[in-house]
Amino acid sequence: MMMFLALLASAAMRQAADPAPPPVSQADQIIAASPAADWRTIDPEETLYLDLPGGRVIIELAPAFAPNHVANIKRLVRQGYFDGLAVVRAQDNYVVQWADPDGKRSLGGAAARLAPEFTRPVAGAAQFTPLPDADTYAPQVGFTGGFPTARDPAAGRTWLTHCYGMVGAGRDNAADSGSGAELYAVIGQAPRLLDRNVTLVGRVVRGIDVLSVMPRGTAPLGFYATPAERIPIRSIRIAADVPVAERLSLQELRTDGATFAALVQARRFRHDDWYKVPAGRVDVCNVTVPVREAKGAARARNGASDGT
Amino acid sequence: MMMFLALLASAAMRQAADPAPPPVSQADQIIAASPAADWRTIDPEETLYLDLPGGRVIIELAPAFAPNHVANIKRLVRQGYFDGLAVVRAQDNYVVQWADPDGKRSLGGAAARLAPEFTRPVAGAAQFTPLPDADTYAPQVGFTGGFPTARDPAAGRTWLTHCYGMVGAGRDNAADSGSGAELYAVIGQAPRLLDRNVTLVGRVVRGIDVLSVMPRGTAPLGFYATPAERIPIRSIRIAADVPVAERLSLQELRTDGATFAALVQARRFRHDDWYKVPAGRVDVCNVTVPVREAKGAARARNGASDGT
Repeated sequence: MMMFLALLASAAMRQAADPAPPPVSQADQIIAASPAADWRTIDPEETLYLDLPGGRVIIELAPAFAPNHVANIKRLVRQGYFDGLAVVRAQDNYVVQWADPDGKRSLGGAAARLAPEFTRPVAGAAQFTPLPDADTYAPQVGFTGGFPTARDPAAGRTWLTHCYGMVGAGRDNAADSGSGAELYAVIGQAPRLLDRNVTLVGRVVRGIDVLSVMPRGTAPLGFYATPAERIPIRSIRIAADVPVAERLSLQELRTDGATFAALVQARRFRHDDWYKVPAGRVDVCNVTVPVREAKGAARARNGASDGT
Repeated sequence: MMMFLALLASAAMRQAADPAPPPVSQADQIIAASPAADWRTIDPEETLYLDLPGGRVIIELAPAFAPNHVANIKRLVRQGYFDGLAVVRAQDNYVVQWADPDGKRSLGGAAARLAPEFTRPVAGAAQFTPLPDADTYAPQVGFTGGFPTARDPAAGRTWLTHCYGMVGAGRDNAADSGSGAELYAVIGQAPRLLDRNVTLVGRVVRGIDVLSVMPRGTAPLGFYATPAERIPIRSIRIAADVPVAERLSLQELRTDGATFAALVQARRFRHDDWYKVPAGRVDVCNVTVPVREAKGAARARNGASDGT
């Protein structure tokens, strides 16, 4: 009776004491055959460790898209600004957000407001790997340096897209009112209406489930109604500042290589016994860039499987 | 310091002991001005109450799209088939699934296999309200009787789309191996690749967060690795079988009326102080059909607000 998308689901579930091996998907096979050159190590200097009671969330920053916000966030992190602050909001099918609940902590040497980095010029941007299918929200979508991105060739602009797990800098009504001192992560259907309206600064590459299972707040917009409900932040650190022995060295599949192109095609045209009608298309937010541990990790764990 | 999409967020959060009123959005205003005729009562005979330790999940069934699966599910429910079974799987950014973990319970008079109801003929289908914007996965998308739907006019077929909160009937590899005895709900980015591959049977209209916050399973595909991790189902009942005094009478905005059309336009073109660049477009899975309590509920609580 165990069915659905799960060739080995019965085995996996019934043999819990002796777990069955994971199903080997087409995506797994493509990744297993990938050359080392198709992977890049995520720069520890551009990686945040957000430590919460439920575990660690690892965020890859996007300095190529939001250099000023990323620099400001790193300044705040190195001052210990976030340590002891809290997750203050969890709105179902939308975002989890963390900040200074009392607005009393000093920003120290960091800026309190920054000019928006909603879009960037296409000129000078890194290699863009377009997806072939139409997108509802943008003339072109694809990937740039591992991040989901959109492009408007006529306007000569590119921007990060609000896919699941993307991290952005909250702001008030003024476009320049964000600073990175308040951050959110997408935990639901991609809120693409936000694209070009807020500065995205990175994406969660490990531990998004630490955020996505948080109890939803009952106050308007999913804010926690009482201080006791907030979830304390133990610390945010830059991976480069953590002793090497305590780091997790992560590799991300290059989005400008042949392995990624094969994965996208495998996702557009599923070839397995379960699928009856391959979609023949894929949305930018239905492609998750695989991330794996650098050593001894044969199998990527972050969305690489086409079991999803 | 409380920012982002939240005109009154600071107030809401800081005055927790004396909560501020919710922000009044354009969507709220449109709903407040809507005539009663633009709402319909959700049929208690086509409504499931899924009771879990974390609360009640209310599901509206879609007999117009999956008549045989819906009938079979109701047969199972009325036999008490689901009572005492469990949520066996929670895969992040994908689905929560419930079933008989041991596969031992009798299906009684219900069918163990059903012919697939993946798509339906356009001819004879209820009023379709198309959305104006391009969709990645289908020639047309919109709403039919409150449900997100796609159409292929050339093929003369229509089908429900896998948006957040949609509920489907798990199956094994054979197209006719589903029965409704195993169900799943979408808790992440719309897995539209599943469209036309599995029978969708309804959508969650209340309590999706009871499912979406469940701890993610650590076995392959998000299955819980041990029986102790599973979340027991207290019962599933059909609302019509519950004493009237214990029911929650829900109304859903008609998707073929002027109010819904205005809401869609408000979502495509945001007019408020926060948005700088209205998307001018909207994806079928970024529109949630408002649901409200029938009496004394002035404000819809399920996605009506354009705070999301």
